[in-house]
Amino acid sequence: NVAEQKSDKGSVFSDLTPEELSATVDYLKKNLGKTFVLATDAKPTDNCIYYVDVKYPTKQQALDYLDRDGEKPKREALAVVFFGDQEEPNITEYVVGPLPNPSYSRDITLEKYKEKLPYYRRPVIDKEYADAYEFVYEKEFSTAPHFLKALGYDGSNFAALTTVPRGFKSGDRSTWFVLFVKVKESCFAVHPVGLEVLLDHKSLDVSKWKITKAFYNGAYFMNMADLEKQFNAGKVEVIEIQNVGPENDIGSMQPKVTPQPGAPLQFNPVGNRYTVHKNQVTFQSWSFTYGMNPNSGLRLFDIRFNNERIAYEISTQEAIALYGSNAPGGMITRYLDGSFGIGRFSFELVRGVDCPYLATYVDTHFLMESETPDTTKNSICIFEQNLGVPLRRHYSNMHSMYYGGLASTVLIVRAVSTLINYDYVWDFIFYQNGVIEAKIHATGYISSSFYYADGKEYGSRVGEHTLGTLHTHFINYKVDLDVGGLDNSIMTQDMKFNPLNIPWQPEVKIQRPKVVRSVLETENQAAFELHTMTPRYIHFSSNTTNKWGHPRSYRVQIASFAGDFLPEESPVQKAMGWARYKLAVTKRKDDEFVSSSIYNQNDPWTPTVAFSKFINNENIQNQDLVAWITVGFLHIPHSEDLPNTATPGNAVGFFLRPYNYFDVDPSVHSPDGVYFQSD
Amino acid sequence: NVAEQKSDKGSVFSDLTPEELSATVDYLKKNLGKTFVLATDAKPTDNCIYYVDVKYPTKQQALDYLDRDGEKPKREALAVVFFGDQEEPNITEYVVGPLPNPSYSRDITLEKYKEKLPYYRRPVIDKEYADAYEFVYEKEFSTAPHFLKALGYDGSNFAALTTVPRGFKSGDRSTWFVLFVKVKESCFAVHPVGLEVLLDHKSLDVSKWKITKAFYNGAYFMNMADLEKQFNAGKVEVIEIQNVGPENDIGSMQPKVTPQPGAPLQFNPVGNRYTVHKNQVTFQSWSFTYGMNPNSGLRLFDIRFNNERIAYEISTQEAIALYGSNAPGGMITRYLDGSFGIGRFSFELVRGVDCPYLATYVDTHFLMESETPDTTKNSICIFEQNLGVPLRRHYSNMHSMYYGGLASTVLIVRAVSTLINYDYVWDFIFYQNGVIEAKIHATGYISSSFYYADGKEYGSRVGEHTLGTLHTHFINYKVDLDVGGLDNSIMTQDMKFNPLNIPWQPEVKIQRPKVVRSVLETENQAAFELHTMTPRYIHFSSNTTNKWGHPRSYRVQIASFAGDFLPEESPVQKAMGWARYKLAVTKRKDDEFVSSSIYNQNDPWTPTVAFSKFINNENIQNQDLVAWITVGFLHIPHSEDLPNTATPGNAVGFFLRPYNYFDVDPSVHSPDGVYFQSD
Ligand SMILES: [Ca+2]
Ligand SMILES: [Ca+2]
Ligand SMILES: [Ca+2]
Ligand SMILES: [Ca+2]
Ligand SMILES: [Cu+2]
Ligand SMILES: [Cu+2]
Repeated sequence: NVAEQKSDKGSVFSDLTPEELSATVDYLKKNLGKTFVLATDAKPTDNCIYYVDVKYPTKQQALDYLDRDGEKPKREALAVVFFGDQEEPNITEYVVGPLPNPSYSRDITLEKYKEKLPYYRRPVIDKEYADAYEFVYEKEFSTAPHFLKALGYDGSNFAALTTVPRGFKSGDRSTWFVLFVKVKESCFAVHPVGLEVLLDHKSLDVSKWKITKAFYNGAYFMNMADLEKQFNAGKVEVIEIQNVGPENDIGSMQPKVTPQPGAPLQFNPVGNRYTVHKNQVTFQSWSFTYGMNPNSGLRLFDIRFNNERIAYEISTQEAIALYGSNAPGGMITRYLDGSFGIGRFSFELVRGVDCPYLATYVDTHFLMESETPDTTKNSICIFEQNLGVPLRRHYSNMHSMYYGGLASTVLIVRAVSTLINYDYVWDFIFYQNGVIEAKIHATGYISSSFYYADGKEYGSRVGEHTLGTLHTHFINYKVDLDVGGLDNSIMTQDMKFNPLNIPWQPEVKIQRPKVVRSVLETENQAAFELHTMTPRYIHFSSNTTNKWGHPRSYRVQIASFAGDFLPEESPVQKAMGWARYKLAVTKRKDDEFVSSSIYNQNDPWTPTVAFSKFINNENIQNQDLVAWITVGFLHIPHSEDLPNTATPGNAVGFFLRPYNYFDVDPSVHSPDGVYFQSD
Repeated sequence: NVAEQKSDKGSVFSDLTPEELSATVDYLKKNLGKTFVLATDAKPTDNCIYYVDVKYPTKQQALDYLDRDGEKPKREALAVVFFGDQEEPNITEYVVGPLPNPSYSRDITLEKYKEKLPYYRRPVIDKEYADAYEFVYEKEFSTAPHFLKALGYDGSNFAALTTVPRGFKSGDRSTWFVLFVKVKESCFAVHPVGLEVLLDHKSLDVSKWKITKAFYNGAYFMNMADLEKQFNAGKVEVIEIQNVGPENDIGSMQPKVTPQPGAPLQFNPVGNRYTVHKNQVTFQSWSFTYGMNPNSGLRLFDIRFNNERIAYEISTQEAIALYGSNAPGGMITRYLDGSFGIGRFSFELVRGVDCPYLATYVDTHFLMESETPDTTKNSICIFEQNLGVPLRRHYSNMHSMYYGGLASTVLIVRAVSTLINYDYVWDFIFYQNGVIEAKIHATGYISSSFYYADGKEYGSRVGEHTLGTLHTHFINYKVDLDVGGLDNSIMTQDMKFNPLNIPWQPEVKIQRPKVVRSVLETENQAAFELHTMTPRYIHFSSNTTNKWGHPRSYRVQIASFAGDFLPEESPVQKAMGWARYKLAVTKRKDDEFVSSSIYNQNDPWTPTVAFSKFINNENIQNQDLVAWITVGFLHIPHSEDLPNTATPGNAVGFFLRPYNYFDVDPSVHSPDGVYFQSD
């Protein structure tokens, strides 16, 4: 029952090929009339290409092509350029097309953002980090030789971890770098040395950068020279770092016993029962396209069941983590992973651990801080998984003797991103009964602070000098459901007990549950704050009805263990405003294509994309609607987070479930059905 | 790393063998001096043996034996006897021992319940149902020949479904039987004919039973004769039933396409990596015993990791469903499945659908409404499952280049119970990192009412004359954690944002999250009502600390989509009082061994076990504590519930997670660890 993929039309959503990436860069370099320096060499005062990604056609254009035999949209690229070598340094976004042989480029910055993009909002590139580390290790550290010697620094055994945001107001670019012991066979991130330095790297002139504060083991200093002075005066108690080896490494992932392969494995007796053709996947009645946004990660388009579109887009938008600590880097940290690159850092998957051994592994191509494309081999896996549980079953021993059932096998699309220390496993899961699930598992290393004083108020001590710092994870998804067409409304259902005088015994009163339904009128009504009571059923509902007269709909069911989001008085909360809502439904707009921005991280005080603006009380009845779903969990680390956070209990996500959409469960058409009778 | 099971001491928790069951019955029949009739033949005025199950030693006795080389507790049975042939008919519970050769029996009814058990609280046995059906079909139906002919009754094509409770006050035994069309190859439960009859079967003299009300298609009648009269007078519009065949059967589970086996399967390259020795299971560092309570289902005891006990008992207690409808049977229904028999109706499992093909399948033995033991073959499955997701993993490309990880394989113990129409999949899941998960998936057929008038206020119409009626499922678990010994306290953790003046820039204020901890003092503080805000982390905490000075604990994390529970004014709510709380922690007591009772179903107005009494503000610091966990979900049926409710999105449960219990994640000792480096 494999859905037929009659055409290659899904290629309209494909990521750029290496050739297309190169052609875009070549075109810009030839036609913009600017001098470019490779990002890996670029000083802040140079121009460089930050990244290139596909620029999709508008939804209207895409649907004209997909559904109405309209013209194939032009293939275009989005190129993000850092202009440091310009009178008014800035970030500019270009659309370049048509690919593969571009003939035009267009500066879309103003159109897209209604403002120019100040240069200070740019993400920190590797070269800027390298310059920062050089500044810290070569220049600043040279002012504190005795202290560093006492600490155990040998000139190369420290690693620095960036924190964000980088200051307290727009234009600031002051980063606390937290110092850790490098560990050859494991991760530095759980071995803090107690030293943190605040580098002001706002100036485009690297020689003007300076350390404006240092922190060691609970005390603040003007800079490393000040720390050295206090140390020499006997006022600083130094805790000498220990060499970390497998025996005392809480972060060691080396098995403590000899591995004995033998875990159960899945095999596919008839080979793959799904197809992966370029960016297009089919599995039983399902078809969809997949791609990888270098910033925000996996993106699926044109998700259909029985060739009828259920969602135009389902994609990850952003992942954030808000920390608390008694050390400076930890206490201010609010990571917006999209600005680091959830897709870019989705590395090669390991067969048999990250995905089943026999999964289909595909490569992604990207161009970032470079002028030539890079390939990450095997960075997305696609596989069918037998969940080991029935999708449905019934054993009948009354009146008729039979058994019917179906093993639940699903198609999973997965990528795993590693953002420095921690890892997210991103799954999109397709069930045989029309259900789609999105699920994220958290794993990898926790962040940590140097353990001192009242550290336990901010987490658990998990090592001799390591404090696992509390944080809350929030992840945002865009779900552009198109249920039975574009025009949808939000229907809610819940239950309510009502007193009832029993019809056949009216003196008796019982409590009877009844369905309570409503249709939400406005975006504001459909913006559900994190910890408010919410109708238990929330549906994207269509104007069409099923055989039994009910509106065909898909239910959005969220599974989340979210902690608290920042209070309104926080000056950075608007940069991640989506996290205020477990679910917000808005009228879809071309210019509200994403809920976050890579520029929000370094200027959260004036967010480039402020999600709250999407919610402006527009009517949401019979409209093309988008659900923005936030899931998350509060993470107070504990010893068992070492060496890595484990996935059990640390998975959150949501289900999209057909609800009166079909006339019966479509899995009756599955080839896996089992049915037998006896007398 | 298989935990060594040095002894067979776990047999102290084993279910009774067929020989032990028989010996118990033989002893009672010989020594009670009463006349017994086989339950299958027993009139209400007879004595019969209802069921026999194991009677455990007290926890003290068991621990003396397990931990302190104490005497092996006597092996005993619990026998429940219905005494209809007695001056004061009653239910009596006996302890019989020592098995296998009993020499004593003891009436424990008064000691256990502080009252005699009135006879009217007894569950309805098959014989009583048979008598009821005979009454309805033979006697009552004979008074309405023309109506029934018009309806399409042919003398044998109807099936009746019981509803509960059976009245409105203690002593009532009036049951609405809802009539359905029998379907040869499928389930009657989704084909209501519109007719329901209220049978008063309170009298112990079957000849005095009577129909006190009838319902047809929205109207109430005195009885079938009244309905006939009205029909003959042309006052009843009859909707003739249709024959149900595969083509029009919304309940048909026959695949609509030719099955093509080929789904992915799991194989075990080195064979099973777990052991099942009688009732004792080991898997890596885990060991525990399993058994099946005929009423309440799966029960695990003495759950250990690295030979240290984590929980004394983890067991299902009860499953209820509260319905709403505009038809009488549906509007009053509150099923307490324990009184029907979650364990008794855990039927044979189907290889490859209910559990993986290569799972270990074991039989259960029970004695119920019988004097001889029955065996259900293959009713529990035990298997290791590769979840297809890493338990943990990290890909390092900073400072050191390596990969470490571990595929998540788990041991699952599963039974699937079928209570007439619907099926529950009961899982207990053991992870390699010390996490235990309990999970219940709902599947099988929905209950339904005849669709008429305002039916949609109570669910969805899912067939020509079928209303899928809304209901809420609640499931209760007993979790007797013993974390680091018997003496535990309940610690809670959560987060709170506090304003902070930045130490290095005091004029700036940020919002910093902090851990908020507390230790609960009393049972009332630890009784968390369903929809109240609850601390995000709730721990069973011990007096011992881990290497880093934190109390060793296990965290209880609940995943539930529960609907509303009955309001306080409901006269039956106390019979299922546990469902008011998502979590309630009580001081463990021998006489608070279970949260429900099989006698609560037929006398919910005077519950034999009233859970709310457990919560009497006792101190819960440094005590042997038990967690009573309730999960559930609101189910407003929809067309895709046909033929069966599907499991995706319909799974709820909880995790028990080590939290500062170990010094690092114990999965570092797994034989499945993967680690490699590159330069
Ligand atoms: Ca809007
Ligand atoms: Ca839409
Ligand atoms: Ca108590
Ligand atoms: Ca306990
Ligand atoms: Cu975390
Ligand atoms: Cu249900």
